[in-house]
Amino acid sequence: MNLEPIGIIYSPYRESQDAPPQGRMKMDIFELEVFPQFIPGLKDIEGASHLIVLYWCDRSKRDVLLVNTPWDTEPHGVFVTRSPQRPNPIAFDVVDLLERQGNILKVRGMDALDKSPLLDIKPYNSRTDAILHAKVDWFDQAGKEEE
Amino acid sequence: MNLEPIGIIYSPYRESQDAPPQGRMKMDIFELEVFPQFIPGLKDIEGASHLIVLYWCDRSKRDVLLVNTPWDTEPHGVFVTRSPQRPNPIAFDVVDLLERQGNILKVRGMDALDKSPLLDIKPYNSRTDAILHAKVDWFDQAGKEEE
Repeated sequence: MNLEPIGIIYSPYRESQDAPPQGRMKMDIFELEVFPQFIPGLKDIEGASHLIVLYWCDRSKRDVLLVNTPWDTEPHGVFVTRSPQRPNPIAFDVVDLLERQGNILKVRGMDALDKSPLLDIKPYNSRTDAILHAKVDWFDQAGKEEE
Repeated sequence: MNLEPIGIIYSPYRESQDAPPQGRMKMDIFELEVFPQFIPGLKDIEGASHLIVLYWCDRSKRDVLLVNTPWDTEPHGVFVTRSPQRPNPIAFDVVDLLERQGNILKVRGMDALDKSPLLDIKPYNSRTDAILHAKVDWFDQAGKEEE
């Protein structure tokens, strides 16, 4: 199973310490550059308000199964965290599509590092992708302790 | 960029014609078998109500950039559809976690074909992943014509 980059992500976050733990609520602007041979795949993308972006965390370790997060002091299984360190370091972000200029998509709401390889773009569909009140016990508990 | 399967998906859908265009609203049960070496990564997963599952559409074409969907008669750019045919055929599903039995997760809401390679599992976080009223013009328009 080999991946081919469909583009590259230009981000204000150059190093991992620059990136917030969660970029969804931040106002920083990112540019997704789609390589020329994939441009036909963008037809009608202007009509999408939100996109799912999959990208490759090329600076991540892949042998980490228990993760310490910024939210509490207990380690958790990597598959119950959003850590970029994971066996297949594919990150998932939901972004606002602000503007398309040819093969460049300006988006907001990511936390990718600069020059991360872009793997896929999908339309966000509220009917199937928006789940209200999902719970993640360890995370919800950590949040409560902070409040 | 090489992917390593972390497990395998057991699905009631054996062939692509068995699968619904969208599995989120269906009641079929799927089993995610996580390979033994990745079991530590499942620690605390029982406390998650919904998971993001990434898997490999191993029976998909990768050279399709314009797609005809079941929803209308116009072709659309693949990056504005959820077609399994795409340059990097990584599918994204949000599922209900029903039960964990050791290295088996019973889930609902997918549309994977049987024996698809499992790539990643992440916790669904309503605070960042749930976007209400996202729009996809071509899809919303197709839906209106049906009604």
